[in-house]
Amino acid sequence: MSSTFGTSLRVTVFGQSHSPAIGCVVEGLPAGFSPDMGALRAFMSRRAPGQASWSTPRKEADLPNIVSGLNQRGETCGAPLAVIIENTNTRSGDYDDVLHVPRPGHADSTAQAKWHGYQDVPGGGHFSGRLTAPICAAGGIALQILASRGVRVGAHLLRVGEATDEPFAAVQLDSPSAERLQGQLDMLSDGRSFPVILRESADAMIAQIDAARAEQDSVGGVIECVACGMPAGVGSPMFDGIESAIARLAFGIPAVKSLEFGAGSLVGSMRGSANNDPYGVVDGAAAPLTNNAGGNLGGITTGAPVLFRMAIKPTPSIARPQASVNLERVQPEELAIHGRHDPCIAPRAVPVAEAVMALALLDSWLAFPPQSL
Amino acid sequence: MSSTFGTSLRVTVFGQSHSPAIGCVVEGLPAGFSPDMGALRAFMSRRAPGQASWSTPRKEADLPNIVSGLNQRGETCGAPLAVIIENTNTRSGDYDDVLHVPRPGHADSTAQAKWHGYQDVPGGGHFSGRLTAPICAAGGIALQILASRGVRVGAHLLRVGEATDEPFAAVQLDSPSAERLQGQLDMLSDGRSFPVILRESADAMIAQIDAARAEQDSVGGVIECVACGMPAGVGSPMFDGIESAIARLAFGIPAVKSLEFGAGSLVGSMRGSANNDPYGVVDGAAAPLTNNAGGNLGGITTGAPVLFRMAIKPTPSIARPQASVNLERVQPEELAIHGRHDPCIAPRAVPVAEAVMALALLDSWLAFPPQSL
Amino acid sequence: MSSTFGTSLRVTVFGQSHSPAIGCVVEGLPAGFSPDMGALRAFMSRRAPGQASWSTPRKEADLPNIVSGLNQRGETCGAPLAVIIENTNTRSGDYDDVLHVPRPGHADSTAQAKWHGYQDVPGGGHFSGRLTAPICAAGGIALQILASRGVRVGAHLLRVGEATDEPFAAVQLDSPSAERLQGQLDMLSDGRSFPVILRESADAMIAQIDAARAEQDSVGGVIECVACGMPAGVGSPMFDGIESAIARLAFGIPAVKSLEFGAGSLVGSMRGSANNDPYGVVDGAAAPLTNNAGGNLGGITTGAPVLFRMAIKPTPSIARPQASVNLERVQPEELAIHGRHDPCIAPRAVPVAEAVMALALLDSWLAFPPQSL
Amino acid sequence: MSSTFGTSLRVTVFGQSHSPAIGCVVEGLPAGFSPDMGALRAFMSRRAPGQASWSTPRKEADLPNIVSGLNQRGETCGAPLAVIIENTNTRSGDYDDVLHVPRPGHADSTAQAKWHGYQDVPGGGHFSGRLTAPICAAGGIALQILASRGVRVGAHLLRVGEATDEPFAAVQLDSPSAERLQGQLDMLSDGRSFPVILRESADAMIAQIDAARAEQDSVGGVIECVACGMPAGVGSPMFDGIESAIARLAFGIPAVKSLEFGAGSLVGSMRGSANNDPYGVVDGAAAPLTNNAGGNLGGITTGAPVLFRMAIKPTPSIARPQASVNLERVQPEELAIHGRHDPCIAPRAVPVAEAVMALALLDSWLAFPPQSL
Repeated sequence: MSSTFGTSLRVTVFGQSHSPAIGCVVEGLPAGFSPDMGALRAFMSRRAPGQASWSTPRKEADLPNIVSGLNQRGETCGAPLAVIIENTNTRSGDYDDVLHVPRPGHADSTAQAKWHGYQDVPGGGHFSGRLTAPICAAGGIALQILASRGVRVGAHLLRVGEATDEPFAAVQLDSPSAERLQGQLDMLSDGRSFPVILRESADAMIAQIDAARAEQDSVGGVIECVACGMPAGVGSPMFDGIESAIARLAFGIPAVKSLEFGAGSLVGSMRGSANNDPYGVVDGAAAPLTNNAGGNLGGITTGAPVLFRMAIKPTPSIARPQASVNLERVQPEELAIHGRHDPCIAPRAVPVAEAVMALALLDSWLAFPPQSL
Repeated sequence: MSSTFGTSLRVTVFGQSHSPAIGCVVEGLPAGFSPDMGALRAFMSRRAPGQASWSTPRKEADLPNIVSGLNQRGETCGAPLAVIIENTNTRSGDYDDVLHVPRPGHADSTAQAKWHGYQDVPGGGHFSGRLTAPICAAGGIALQILASRGVRVGAHLLRVGEATDEPFAAVQLDSPSAERLQGQLDMLSDGRSFPVILRESADAMIAQIDAARAEQDSVGGVIECVACGMPAGVGSPMFDGIESAIARLAFGIPAVKSLEFGAGSLVGSMRGSANNDPYGVVDGAAAPLTNNAGGNLGGITTGAPVLFRMAIKPTPSIARPQASVNLERVQPEELAIHGRHDPCIAPRAVPVAEAVMALALLDSWLAFPPQSL
Repeated sequence: MSSTFGTSLRVTVFGQSHSPAIGCVVEGLPAGFSPDMGALRAFMSRRAPGQASWSTPRKEADLPNIVSGLNQRGETCGAPLAVIIENTNTRSGDYDDVLHVPRPGHADSTAQAKWHGYQDVPGGGHFSGRLTAPICAAGGIALQILASRGVRVGAHLLRVGEATDEPFAAVQLDSPSAERLQGQLDMLSDGRSFPVILRESADAMIAQIDAARAEQDSVGGVIECVACGMPAGVGSPMFDGIESAIARLAFGIPAVKSLEFGAGSLVGSMRGSANNDPYGVVDGAAAPLTNNAGGNLGGITTGAPVLFRMAIKPTPSIARPQASVNLERVQPEELAIHGRHDPCIAPRAVPVAEAVMALALLDSWLAFPPQSL
Repeated sequence: MSSTFGTSLRVTVFGQSHSPAIGCVVEGLPAGFSPDMGALRAFMSRRAPGQASWSTPRKEADLPNIVSGLNQRGETCGAPLAVIIENTNTRSGDYDDVLHVPRPGHADSTAQAKWHGYQDVPGGGHFSGRLTAPICAAGGIALQILASRGVRVGAHLLRVGEATDEPFAAVQLDSPSAERLQGQLDMLSDGRSFPVILRESADAMIAQIDAARAEQDSVGGVIECVACGMPAGVGSPMFDGIESAIARLAFGIPAVKSLEFGAGSLVGSMRGSANNDPYGVVDGAAAPLTNNAGGNLGGITTGAPVLFRMAIKPTPSIARPQASVNLERVQPEELAIHGRHDPCIAPRAVPVAEAVMALALLDSWLAFPPQSL
């Protein structure tokens, strides 16, 4: 089904940008886990709108309300966990203009081709980026469960427009690299508002965003995400492998247009001798010495950090006039969008990348663990 | 399940590199279609090994034997269609050396971490690239059904190592571009043995492959795939969208490490005004004028060509010595692989990309068509 | 997943007896349908508690609140439809006694064996009969959509204890029988509070229930359900046939212990010549003349009424003392249950049977329609 | 999908009565199990045709050929296990008469309504009882795995026409009953050709079958199936419970028209005080003292024997003339069926019931085990 993903850990997302509420149902959580609601709210606030100059002024508290799935002590109880998030700050009137004029880069025209006017148009309906809030609610709980199992997930902006950040130290697997990677993750979780490792990257990226907004335009970005501490042997060959699980979920996030693992698209230019990760004896066991594979081979974890990068397209809603067509009159009509939109959605998509990683890995772990001895 | 994909058109793949047979079961094919077996064999022969200097000398006829799913007139009959392909040319002895020494870049070590020695090691077992033969059998039938509905699918090598080919003319949607694209597809289906558009690209790429082999090494590549003629409105929001469907399948193909649609990873550097595809009135209806979206928005087709690129890593099996570990003795052991391996698997993966496209699009069409009026 | 069913029409149920809310998410509804909320509330009130002498005094308004899935005109919009029902009248204190003493006939002991104390005990948690309220919310909408397609669904109590009702006239398919069946359905939908066809059946069944309650006991029943107007050719061979679809759902309803279609268990004593439904020419087309098959053959509808019967066990919660075990002390402990419980749940399960029929048939119709010509 | 069932243990069945082969693919088998092929063939021969006077003279060796899923030592290897069974003894000519005249009680007419002539008619195509052979192949392996875990499954004919057998001693859970049940299972596995407990039951049932055949007719039956040794806590609430899992699979078997668990349809007449299974302390732990529940509550095993009964309709194919309709001429046509058919299929369906039990229980155990402590 279109709004559901996962094999053992199943998440069903519901809601539209301007419906009374959005939310999700999470089936298959292990029983006995006590979600830290403060940490969950903090995680979700990294995605919430209205928080900074580079974000939409639409303010939504995005408080997750868990209405089922916990026992009276607040522990997961084996039943589906349902999260409700109220939509409080809807201004559907903003969309009266665009009901019949599809916004370039949005799903307005494809929703029309599919549902012939029955779709919920305002704010993009079910296609809205707001639907990433329930994904973050489910993902935030998955992150906490992974953390309790020794897995640490982090993400940052690797690129916004022409500005870049330092990549994760997740290719070399020696001790200095591992320490450097932990340091990077520490920095990213120190409460900073802009999710990059280097201070100067933040400045450069915010400058890119400000420039785009000044020109009534928007700009895209690339997010890099890593998970450290996964044991080897999690996942499955072929179509339920780690990469397929992350990919199905990642491309369900509006605006993601590319995804790569480890050495990624560079493998197309590489030699096998450079791309293959050799094995050595580490701590008394065989282990890869490098990580071009991005932490999985044949869909199964190697024990090295799982690493992906995904590109986020520039916000389609821009104030600059664009060519479109009035679908009722079937005539060209120029469109200038005056809603409340981020000039760059990539910063707010960083926690979404972490949620994607956490949900895919936890589901894979529950559904396809290493066979017990 | 790990070896199954699809929503309404379900394909279950089975077999190992050295099992008696490999094959697949295809559920959900529309009844009443007569597969052209000659065309299917011709399609599969583009993937089959042993056909050229740049390919493994392991010869397998890879003849698809349909043992169920057709009625007595040879039409699909509503029942699951099963395809059996015998493994005739197995030389498991080649793998005696590597039973306890995982080959870098292969799933040997992760299969061991998962199944502790029960996995079928020779030839990579279920992880073998041979498992793309049944995917091509299913995909070849899907291609024929799509063709009967006016959809044309083609793919080529965009890159091998440092050599490149001309990209598909699928970004501009004007008439000259559309003609150019059809011409490119015509050229690719003229029986040429090396799947590139430009003659000189073939020469350059084969030179890259020969150089790698001469150095006991291998080289990777990038495949570009396009589908023309899909109607608008096919697909679904979120996790069963066109991109998610293709992605889950593509990353199930061994060696794929990146996937991108339309403008792909470049969107991270783009402005919205450049990336958004404006609409115009074409043939009396609204239509996008460019195709940075790669033929889908919000997971639903726009009517423009669906376009993806995927990077194929260099063949992991290389004769050049590599560092590995003997898992029994837990000691470093140098490994030189003396099987029969392609120095570049990307050429043989081109029809696999077409199969991926066809299976994902046909499944989406059957499962998530535009709602009927 | 355990709390999800359906192929194209997917329903995910959440909630516990004493959680803040219960509800469901319905994916795959056709877009453009306007649910009649008054009719939906009326349908759900037939299941709601607190309405009659033979029902629990726990009062719950059970008002369905649709928080997503409708557009601004109140039509289904292609996005998942989420229904929330608040739990308002919880008295968890009633269950303090039974936290460590499993109630015979309930899932207390099996939930303990599965989750070791993490399950939500009060009121049966996720196993509560209250979870049939969201099934009725989803089923009520499915009933409305089926009605708009000419399908009429009805159910009644065929048995309570030793008292019986007249069966549906759905075995003979001649005109008088068809008229009689419509008359029976008319009677059942005339607003009567006790769901039987014959007045004297109501008296006799209520007497059975009163007698059970007077003895601090409970009593079971059998429900018969019919659907008229389904076209031939809906469904699928083998495991997604009409019977499998209904069965998976029916046995998900707490207290259902048997299910049969058409002639049902009697076929074990019958001859083929008596059980086979002969064909004749009716209105210019071939049609079955009798309906021992219960409206489907090989999992696919015949066009005759779909007919099933299911037995509902007596309410497990009874005030009469029962032998149980204190799980903490692992000692026998007598248990007398002083909650608010129906002496017979079968009457309130009648609309649940209609919901089961409607959801299974609509899902089958959407997922496995007759192939279009 | 229609021909697939299971959550973690997935079985996909393919083939038609007269296709070159039939078979199945089994995904999710634990790695490291060595199927006993002799025992598997012996199990399948109990279902195979041509073995006795009460069976069809169509002879099929029904030898299961495992073409993938085993490693070189014959152990399951984590990859999908594919079984091929050749159809050797097809006589499609037998069906020329019935191509346009649907056989009463068969799926001929519904297949026509669904596929409009594209379906594979001879022998019932994919609807044939022959498709239970691959179910037995998969089920036979599941039975062996369950046996290795201490679970014993058995079934017998409880009824054929008016003749009955002694029921399983699975309602009382005291020691004498348990011994008696083991004795019954021992008798059923002593190599007897007719699957009943009592010698006189066999005589009476065979007399019923012979009488039906003598009158060019057929007769139905009821099968009772039990599984002993399942631990408590296996299964899942709601729609993936033990009963739902068995039911979806059982109603996928051609000819099954009713299914009941434990006290079954009798619960409709029972009082709660009689139907509830009280708990006592057994071997230092709480356990049910009786088993009206049929071994599961709320979809989760109690530890008591899992018990179901299913009714098998009389073979639809009978030599006695029946009323039907020529679909081409749309005129009544009398039909007398001269193929090779069992006068009673219930005896050969007994191992199928065991396969259903084994597949449903093993899948539930793998997908929904008790949570580990």
